[in-house]
Amino acid sequence: MFEQITIIGLGHIGSSLARSIKHNNLCKKLIAADASPSVCEKVVELGMADEVYTDLTKAVIGSDIVVLAVPVGAMKLVAEQIAHLVKPGGIITDVGSVKIAVIEAVQPFIPDSVDFVPAHPMAGTENSGPESGLADLFEERWCLITPTDNTSIKAVEKITALWEGVKARIEIMSPEHHDIVLGITSHLPHLIAYTIVDTANMLEDDLKSDVIKYSATGFRGFTRIAASDPTMWRDIFLNNKVAVLDVLQRFTEDLTAMQKAIRRGDGDYLFDVFTRTREIRREVIELGEAGRPAPGYKSAVQ
Amino acid sequence: MFEQITIIGLGHIGSSLARSIKHNNLCKKLIAADASPSVCEKVVELGMADEVYTDLTKAVIGSDIVVLAVPVGAMKLVAEQIAHLVKPGGIITDVGSVKIAVIEAVQPFIPDSVDFVPAHPMAGTENSGPESGLADLFEERWCLITPTDNTSIKAVEKITALWEGVKARIEIMSPEHHDIVLGITSHLPHLIAYTIVDTANMLEDDLKSDVIKYSATGFRGFTRIAASDPTMWRDIFLNNKVAVLDVLQRFTEDLTAMQKAIRRGDGDYLFDVFTRTREIRREVIELGEAGRPAPGYKSAVQ
Repeated sequence: MFEQITIIGLGHIGSSLARSIKHNNLCKKLIAADASPSVCEKVVELGMADEVYTDLTKAVIGSDIVVLAVPVGAMKLVAEQIAHLVKPGGIITDVGSVKIAVIEAVQPFIPDSVDFVPAHPMAGTENSGPESGLADLFEERWCLITPTDNTSIKAVEKITALWEGVKARIEIMSPEHHDIVLGITSHLPHLIAYTIVDTANMLEDDLKSDVIKYSATGFRGFTRIAASDPTMWRDIFLNNKVAVLDVLQRFTEDLTAMQKAIRRGDGDYLFDVFTRTREIRREVIELGEAGRPAPGYKSAVQ
Repeated sequence: MFEQITIIGLGHIGSSLARSIKHNNLCKKLIAADASPSVCEKVVELGMADEVYTDLTKAVIGSDIVVLAVPVGAMKLVAEQIAHLVKPGGIITDVGSVKIAVIEAVQPFIPDSVDFVPAHPMAGTENSGPESGLADLFEERWCLITPTDNTSIKAVEKITALWEGVKARIEIMSPEHHDIVLGITSHLPHLIAYTIVDTANMLEDDLKSDVIKYSATGFRGFTRIAASDPTMWRDIFLNNKVAVLDVLQRFTEDLTAMQKAIRRGDGDYLFDVFTRTREIRREVIELGEAGRPAPGYKSAVQ
């Protein structure tokens, strides 16, 4: 399907994409590049790519598609190093969990002859490193593509074909819409889970030990989310600041209204909210998202 | 083990206790009482008790133990009706999810010759009604017993024996400690889940439909909690007001600190919090609560 693809960053997502591309036979030559020599050794050992480089500038020469699968905080540095070396007509794409910040970091380095197609495959497990890659990680998972004003339709079609080739489901939306949707569905829930677990962490010792002991009553689910990778989530919050602060503000207003209802003993208000929220659960279940055993979502970047 | 036990309120918890008592052969005569004629018919049909009454005052005569398994908001009314009819040396106990409020509602009606032993079996599924009762619901689940200043040690021992008889694990603590522990582990998580799902519910339509569509990324777990029974949870928040408002205040302070860190771009602060919270997850898993497939906790009252 493609002549040559380069993946930069062979963490969980990058290595899963490498395996998926090989598994689905999507290109003639697959090149892997990672600044870490030990990661590169592992990639060679596992036979995941046809060529492996620690020098990113060598890895992108002649490729049709260059996938940036590095942490959101490293996108700018990598783009600066490699964007001008991508062949005319080539495409740079990424897998970052936030889109506006990645576009702002990468776009300035994109030559006129090259397209940049921002993308976010929403898949992942709790594991990391090249050995954690799964050839079927993206099957039936959403991949959101968020073109910029400069992205050509042809380039979007090619990246769509790439992700459809690994059996992902594609949706195209604006970067702004992506960041606010993810802000609500993923970033705010993570922020809240981290916060409540840390609130418990700061309790007096005897209270804290009982909270852990009796965690089955609701708290436990929050601890799972709050065990997500600290570096990745720090980068997400720092790089989706506007959307996160916006949805956090809405949430805080709603929480204050709940607090007021509890303080005043306004049972009708509480009952109305608790009835409305059941409807959302019904819609989630009808869409089939709730029923299937999704792997723990850890976003697209390591 | 006991001569005669009466259970008042044959909802999910009451009917599960009835089945568990029969299953474990804990008393010679089991009496069921519910103000609802249709519930009583069902109990007769299912053969769950030796005698069944809609008149609560008839149901308690001669019983060693009377279990109040009615909603927290109905405890006072029931206690007023039956407490003076319980035989000298008899015990009244309950299964409510909040303890201080139940004690305040019930204690005034307890005669000197009768003991009141507040208790909270932490078990339950999403189902309700007498037909939803499970004979093994309490096995390996915690039952927290919260004696008052008036409760005799002997009475606590008898209620301990009852719950151990249905294979629950017993812990004794003060009502104040119970309410704050449950405030953190159960009530606050529910309040937050209800709030975030309602925040999503109030979004513009196109945003809302995408939040539901992409809910797998963290939001989904919150919708499950936010589908809990509205009446039961309204009663819990109205009846554990002090503890819930206290833990909510702590949470809000911590959330404000997170908000400030995001706004200022303080990555070190975020990283430190996200690292601390992993430790709590480790402790939760070590205690074994996280690993086992607990039924969805819905608290003890219907």
